[in-house]
Amino acid sequence: MTTTSTRQAEIFVDPDVPLVRITRDFDAPPEKVFRAHTDPALIVQWMGPRRYEMRIDHYDCRTGGSYRYVHVADGDEHGFHGSFHEVRPSELIVQTFTYEGVPDGVALERMTFEDLGAGRTRLTATSLVDSFQGRDAFVASGMESGVQEMYQRLDELLAD
Amino acid sequence: MTTTSTRQAEIFVDPDVPLVRITRDFDAPPEKVFRAHTDPALIVQWMGPRRYEMRIDHYDCRTGGSYRYVHVADGDEHGFHGSFHEVRPSELIVQTFTYEGVPDGVALERMTFEDLGAGRTRLTATSLVDSFQGRDAFVASGMESGVQEMYQRLDELLAD
Repeated sequence: MTTTSTRQAEIFVDPDVPLVRITRDFDAPPEKVFRAHTDPALIVQWMGPRRYEMRIDHYDCRTGGSYRYVHVADGDEHGFHGSFHEVRPSELIVQTFTYEGVPDGVALERMTFEDLGAGRTRLTATSLVDSFQGRDAFVASGMESGVQEMYQRLDELLAD
Repeated sequence: MTTTSTRQAEIFVDPDVPLVRITRDFDAPPEKVFRAHTDPALIVQWMGPRRYEMRIDHYDCRTGGSYRYVHVADGDEHGFHGSFHEVRPSELIVQTFTYEGVPDGVALERMTFEDLGAGRTRLTATSLVDSFQGRDAFVASGMESGVQEMYQRLDELLAD
């Protein structure tokens, strides 16, 4: 089956507020796509570029929980952490996100898992920051190719 | 001493992003103003309008912690909850905030405690949401008088 590998994430750069919205469909039901976002044993298989190994410090994906993980390649380490504001199983994750290379930067992220029927799910992920400059620098940094690669990895995991 | 009771919070409604910034000086050092934001026994004495009793479910003000509290008056209850993204003692609190009357609304809040010397502190509190409509409705709802009353209560607590 080749449809999953050609599927593209749509990235919308909001002109009015410093927000990016990503929409991506998956050939798996919401329960399964959601679980791939919350189970550390699954997360490490897709969340990030292929060239990095992902190490999870903790990933307590529930309302009021928190997370921290590190991407590692050739002695190069990048840490990320945040807290989970609200988690509704198979429906919604609202969380904060900081890349520790820019420790005072923080994004408010919201993911919804929409049941498209026939075992398919639409993921909508928004990321809100406090300046257009910060948002646009993030988009210009190669964010799109990273997002496409990451969700191709998730397709492969969901197909297993 | 009457200077504290006349001190006003300055409220800046950002024209470019859906953010409100509040700046307020206090006659107490950063450690003391910070502690009033983190110790539940102190928080219930000032965080909200005078006419409400504040009941705290939990208030775990540390990086990765969370909180929930309720304002109660005459059988009228309003719940609020969020998570703490980052807490640096006497310096910084970054948290999320939801008023449970609007359960899908969420703000990203950032508070800094700046040492002005001579036992004084400047608190700067920003609140970022994902739409101007939501931000402007919040400002129009009487937010300013609530903020002024709340910080007058904090002045009184800090003067004790």
